[in-house]
Amino acid sequence: MSWEDNIRRVTPYVPGEQPRVTGRLIKLNTNECPYPPSPEVSRILREMPPGDMRLYPDPEAVELKDALSEVYGVPRERIFVGVGSDDVLSMAFMTFFHGSLPVLFPDVTYSFYEVWAELHGVPCRKVPLDGGLNIDVSDYEGPCGGIVFPNPNAPTGIYMGLENVEVLVGSHPDCVVICDEAYIDFGGESALPLTEKYDNLLVVQTMSKSRAMAGMRVGWAFGNEKLIKYLNDVRNSFNSYTLNRAAILCGAAAVRDRDTLEKNTGMIIKTRERTSGALREMGFAMTDSLTNFLFCGREGVSAEPLFRALREEGIFVRYFPGERTGERLRVTVGTDGQMDVLLDFLRGYAG
Amino acid sequence: MSWEDNIRRVTPYVPGEQPRVTGRLIKLNTNECPYPPSPEVSRILREMPPGDMRLYPDPEAVELKDALSEVYGVPRERIFVGVGSDDVLSMAFMTFFHGSLPVLFPDVTYSFYEVWAELHGVPCRKVPLDGGLNIDVSDYEGPCGGIVFPNPNAPTGIYMGLENVEVLVGSHPDCVVICDEAYIDFGGESALPLTEKYDNLLVVQTMSKSRAMAGMRVGWAFGNEKLIKYLNDVRNSFNSYTLNRAAILCGAAAVRDRDTLEKNTGMIIKTRERTSGALREMGFAMTDSLTNFLFCGREGVSAEPLFRALREEGIFVRYFPGERTGERLRVTVGTDGQMDVLLDFLRGYAG
Repeated sequence: MSWEDNIRRVTPYVPGEQPRVTGRLIKLNTNECPYPPSPEVSRILREMPPGDMRLYPDPEAVELKDALSEVYGVPRERIFVGVGSDDVLSMAFMTFFHGSLPVLFPDVTYSFYEVWAELHGVPCRKVPLDGGLNIDVSDYEGPCGGIVFPNPNAPTGIYMGLENVEVLVGSHPDCVVICDEAYIDFGGESALPLTEKYDNLLVVQTMSKSRAMAGMRVGWAFGNEKLIKYLNDVRNSFNSYTLNRAAILCGAAAVRDRDTLEKNTGMIIKTRERTSGALREMGFAMTDSLTNFLFCGREGVSAEPLFRALREEGIFVRYFPGERTGERLRVTVGTDGQMDVLLDFLRGYAG
Repeated sequence: MSWEDNIRRVTPYVPGEQPRVTGRLIKLNTNECPYPPSPEVSRILREMPPGDMRLYPDPEAVELKDALSEVYGVPRERIFVGVGSDDVLSMAFMTFFHGSLPVLFPDVTYSFYEVWAELHGVPCRKVPLDGGLNIDVSDYEGPCGGIVFPNPNAPTGIYMGLENVEVLVGSHPDCVVICDEAYIDFGGESALPLTEKYDNLLVVQTMSKSRAMAGMRVGWAFGNEKLIKYLNDVRNSFNSYTLNRAAILCGAAAVRDRDTLEKNTGMIIKTRERTSGALREMGFAMTDSLTNFLFCGREGVSAEPLFRALREEGIFVRYFPGERTGERLRVTVGTDGQMDVLLDFLRGYAG
């Protein structure tokens, strides 16, 4: 017998490439914000007393929770925070999906769901999107161990109305429903108010996209007090101090700066609409995105060679091989200038 | 049925209190360093380009691994990094302790081991320390699912010689042995060289104690390349980006600054010896500590009331109720000035 006989073997999630060369690179592959975060963030980093670093951070991250509480009007006891929404979601899988019935999520969605299910030993079943790549809530009827979906969905970018979110939550009081709102600030309406009405709904958000703070790793969840307590118990059984001092303080400042949030998301939405219009003129088909990315493809143009051709030009986008995703590319909405470079290249490439 | 029927219920770890009042407080309860970290850390925070924050951190944390590689002479492929050593240890429990035989650890030790075992569903067995609170390696003979112990042990502070560590590792080639070296820089000798000889040994260290960086949450492990790969696979199935940009850069700088490490640990060791001498003169008994804390008690003086009396004076130490720990207090070695306040109080209290 060897020590290798008793280990957990997994197929890890493969994140979008983080190329180290930054020269002429146009990075449209991991849905980062093209604009810097709140100026308060750099002020806080500059002014952090060096001596404080020797002390553990506040395990409750009260400063961050208080900022979220103030901005979103939710009491602190209904907020959970983590190292990006990936940490929050992984902890939620571990906490809430602990039964024997399968957990349901769309077949085309954030590919980490399947990885977490495998890691935490959660049985799961992928529910196909309809022909228009929409979630059809009637496909989620019947007993299950839980439901998780992004709203808007990724990589489709499609937003589902709250009346449908409520159908999912309301018809499954016997399991936890996770609404992953990583992209909610780009035009959708949050399911947060539904957490007042339903004790089985967890709404997860992140600072990585709309708040331009991917580098700081801050995410959170809103939910019923009891739900948050269970989540905290598991978190405190994993690592008591997940958010470091910089993340707590910078996160709190970024949450409070609503002007930067509105300015940045406003510019991104404008660029998204302009870019999707131009792409449609070129014959590209795409879903209606309420996110900071476009999921687009053109008949007669294979997505994979186009992905590689763009890469050679220093334009990084995301390509997901597979039956329903392999005909398109997921392109992050960057600055107007970056989009112009992309559009120019596509005009030449697609003829 | 309710959603509460299928959740993971756990008894979380309770960390040492992080009081928010900092006035006249003498904080000797979580083994933090009383001196600030490398001055490079504040320089890096001051100079971080705000625009970088919008981009995800390097998921491989290459800058940090390269610094560790340089300082410890270990190739990057044999290094794993995490959000403090708690994150590293939790991931290691999840990865390596996945069999049905019980994992062994001392009965008096870091209390998080038991919490991780429960969280990750790992069967475990506590092996009693001997009468002098030492680990007796002969008690660990026979088949098991893994072994984990701190060296020096906590809260005893006792260091076990490498010849004994080698007995544990060498006699259990069929399971992973984790040597948790959170306190190794205060006088012990690291088991790191043994990772060259044994592929089943994981050596875990942290920046929270000797490098005065508890607030930044950086820990790491050294091990065989294959061991590290399995650990990375699980980490990448949990959260691809665990260390934020500040932690990676500040961590790298703190590792490289060996002068600050030597200066700080040198002062702490000197204060430890002076303080233990003074306590012994007062009639206190204690183990021989090679850490930055003392585990001490005096016959006829109950530890729990003393703990509370110290707390009322604004002196926070750690008390672990229980048969073998409840007669002593664990006192972090602070500055000479802080120790003098403590000693003065004890002279008055203990008569």
